[in-house]
Amino acid sequence: MTFELTKEYVEKIESAILTKDEATLRAEMDELYPADISSLLYELDTEAAHYLFGLIETDIGAEILAEIEPDDRKQFLSNFTSSEIARYIEVFDSDDAVDLLKEQPIQVREEVIGLLKDREQARFIIDLLPYDEDVAGGLMQKELVKANANWTVNECIEEIRKQAEDVEKVYAVYVVDDAQTLLGLVSLKNLVLARKNTKIGNIFDEDIHFVETYRPVEEVAEIMQRYDLEAIPVVNVQRRLLGRITIDDILDVVTERAEEDIQAIAGITGEVEEDDSLFKQVKARLPWLIVGVFGSLLAATVIRFFEGELTKIAALAMFIPIMGSTGGNVGIQTASLIVQSLADSSGIEIGWKERLLKILVIAALNGLIIGLLAGGYVLIFSQPQLFWVVSLSLLAVVLLASFMGTVTPLLLDRFGINPAMASGPFITTANDLVGIGTYFLIAHFLLKV
Amino acid sequence: MTFELTKEYVEKIESAILTKDEATLRAEMDELYPADISSLLYELDTEAAHYLFGLIETDIGAEILAEIEPDDRKQFLSNFTSSEIARYIEVFDSDDAVDLLKEQPIQVREEVIGLLKDREQARFIIDLLPYDEDVAGGLMQKELVKANANWTVNECIEEIRKQAEDVEKVYAVYVVDDAQTLLGLVSLKNLVLARKNTKIGNIFDEDIHFVETYRPVEEVAEIMQRYDLEAIPVVNVQRRLLGRITIDDILDVVTERAEEDIQAIAGITGEVEEDDSLFKQVKARLPWLIVGVFGSLLAATVIRFFEGELTKIAALAMFIPIMGSTGGNVGIQTASLIVQSLADSSGIEIGWKERLLKILVIAALNGLIIGLLAGGYVLIFSQPQLFWVVSLSLLAVVLLASFMGTVTPLLLDRFGINPAMASGPFITTANDLVGIGTYFLIAHFLLKV
Repeated sequence: MTFELTKEYVEKIESAILTKDEATLRAEMDELYPADISSLLYELDTEAAHYLFGLIETDIGAEILAEIEPDDRKQFLSNFTSSEIARYIEVFDSDDAVDLLKEQPIQVREEVIGLLKDREQARFIIDLLPYDEDVAGGLMQKELVKANANWTVNECIEEIRKQAEDVEKVYAVYVVDDAQTLLGLVSLKNLVLARKNTKIGNIFDEDIHFVETYRPVEEVAEIMQRYDLEAIPVVNVQRRLLGRITIDDILDVVTERAEEDIQAIAGITGEVEEDDSLFKQVKARLPWLIVGVFGSLLAATVIRFFEGELTKIAALAMFIPIMGSTGGNVGIQTASLIVQSLADSSGIEIGWKERLLKILVIAALNGLIIGLLAGGYVLIFSQPQLFWVVSLSLLAVVLLASFMGTVTPLLLDRFGINPAMASGPFITTANDLVGIGTYFLIAHFLLKV
Repeated sequence: MTFELTKEYVEKIESAILTKDEATLRAEMDELYPADISSLLYELDTEAAHYLFGLIETDIGAEILAEIEPDDRKQFLSNFTSSEIARYIEVFDSDDAVDLLKEQPIQVREEVIGLLKDREQARFIIDLLPYDEDVAGGLMQKELVKANANWTVNECIEEIRKQAEDVEKVYAVYVVDDAQTLLGLVSLKNLVLARKNTKIGNIFDEDIHFVETYRPVEEVAEIMQRYDLEAIPVVNVQRRLLGRITIDDILDVVTERAEEDIQAIAGITGEVEEDDSLFKQVKARLPWLIVGVFGSLLAATVIRFFEGELTKIAALAMFIPIMGSTGGNVGIQTASLIVQSLADSSGIEIGWKERLLKILVIAALNGLIIGLLAGGYVLIFSQPQLFWVVSLSLLAVVLLASFMGTVTPLLLDRFGINPAMASGPFITTANDLVGIGTYFLIAHFLLKV
């Protein structure tokens, strides 16, 4: 029952498009879910995709458009007229409509809004446009079912019937007073079980979760995850009900954030995928590689500064790699734990001093063990006079890298930058440099060469 | 409305526990959601937590137990008797009950099951125990509302009423035939809107998503995310309805997997958090650091092998860091993109050859640019005779690291190991080693020293 896109299937569709075999194409598309058709469209060239898309019903077409990645969608829609776009926007959920329109030039955006026959939809969109995408307001949809506390269960069910087409998923009916202030909710289950003439005011649940429009998306995700909610109402500062956020959008946010974190750690800029163009991939990878190169060339300059020592004791070069990579490894470990702990706000916030002290004790323990291991190698395979240089340098490197791995994400977080960047190439490069500098300084003072 | 745990609050609770001020404690706990009480319990010592927990109603206590991390829960329950545990298990959802019982010794597990008064719950648990936690069966709960296709809407609502207490969240009623084969579902919304004497068989939706018990959890997560489902029914190979998986469990799985990936990349073993004990943290970090140290000592051995060259041209040492870190950076970038593309099964599967070819072209472009940058540095700040050595080595290192970054995650994935491991310290260390080896080999042959 899970659809799997095969090369054979794509070829079959492509040849049906070439022969303009509308009957076959319509029949095939009828078999697929919108999400699967959108996967298929990715595999076709622009013209073929456009032709195929024209054969699909407006409802399904709208669902497909809602699935496509922003960049691809913008390109796909570039040769659509405003009234073609309006046809799909008409049946979109308001949150998806706003996402799509924000990708379009202002002129197209205004034309489309002007062309909408459903004036409620137009008003919804105009309401939602001002919100940034990283706050609750930018994620909410206007479509929801609400009931006045004075209504009966029966009136409430009538309202659901009226809204049935617009509100695809109903989990609960939000209860408001005459001023549209959010009072609570009745779950659909309780509505089913209640008597028809009961007053909503007597059965609703007052003790509910809600968020204000300005709350960061991460906070909304955490609340919904923490309290296992499938939807959460969004209110303004006067607690007036403005919209709701559903769990599927939150799941997308969580997945996207995780991908962003991993890309930040891996040193890839921008959202890039394996099947993107060569140019796009080079552009996504090169910046951080170049940062790394500059860092390493700085390290080279540090080493050049100690060329005198190296000429006398060539064996010193042997331990350049261990200083660099240990610094990098410890830095990434430390930074990841800090990032993880920043993301989890369920416990008491830990103070800076307490945090650093604990991390440095752990670093000292790890540094001692690693230092002795490497020291053992020095005694057996290299010159015994280097024992203290290598062991002490490693201890120092682990301590320094732990310090930087703690402070960098905390600083980034304070300045509103994704702290996961602190686990990426920047910190690795910095630690490389610091590690090698420390090593040669210690060598210089201990060996007095 | 979001609860924030402060030091002052914890101290207030602690002092109320010391004076055994039950009234205050009960009143305070009444104000909190279960998820918030569980955050609070983490901050108390075992005895205080146990005392406070005893004051809480069974229902709420059960919800709290369902929230706590497995390790902590095991420890927390270690001085509970089997009948105390049974009291909470009685009101657990079946999936959570199984998770908890799997953490207990077999004897406790069997005692608890034997002590359950709700024999249906006992049967549910026995049904679920055999499933591994990484397949659909291990995530499903037995609690759901199902209806026979012959029933009327009214009979169906009666069934919901009967199940109301056991099934906390009802999104839809699953429709089965007399042999319990899954036929489809009626959403709660459509049930509310249907006439009371309509036959379920006439209004249910046949075209639904479901999963078999043996499907990997990742696949279930992808299907639910792709098709925006809040619950999915689970069936056996004969398509008999066995249970359902709800979206909150999937959200937990997605979050957990993302954390695991980041820990794999960061080289941390086991689930460890910043507030864990010193010993646990050292244990989680040391293994990969030691792997890194052994890799770097191998690199040291390679360098020792070329000590002759180094003694003659000390400047060679300057470029050891750039070879190591560029290899590491390129390897992580490549591996992350492959991991990401392995996780996304919506497109056509890319063949190995095609994949490698494209990646190597990208590597060649990046390698040329980086090689020329570093070459420029050599010409200005070092010995011009090293220009070709450094530039060619960098190109070779980028190509090799890209190759390894592609092949390693694909191999790990084929052997059922988390491919994100390929972005971790192992691959960085290996790339360090390969980078330095390549560099000295090229130096040896080009410089003929």
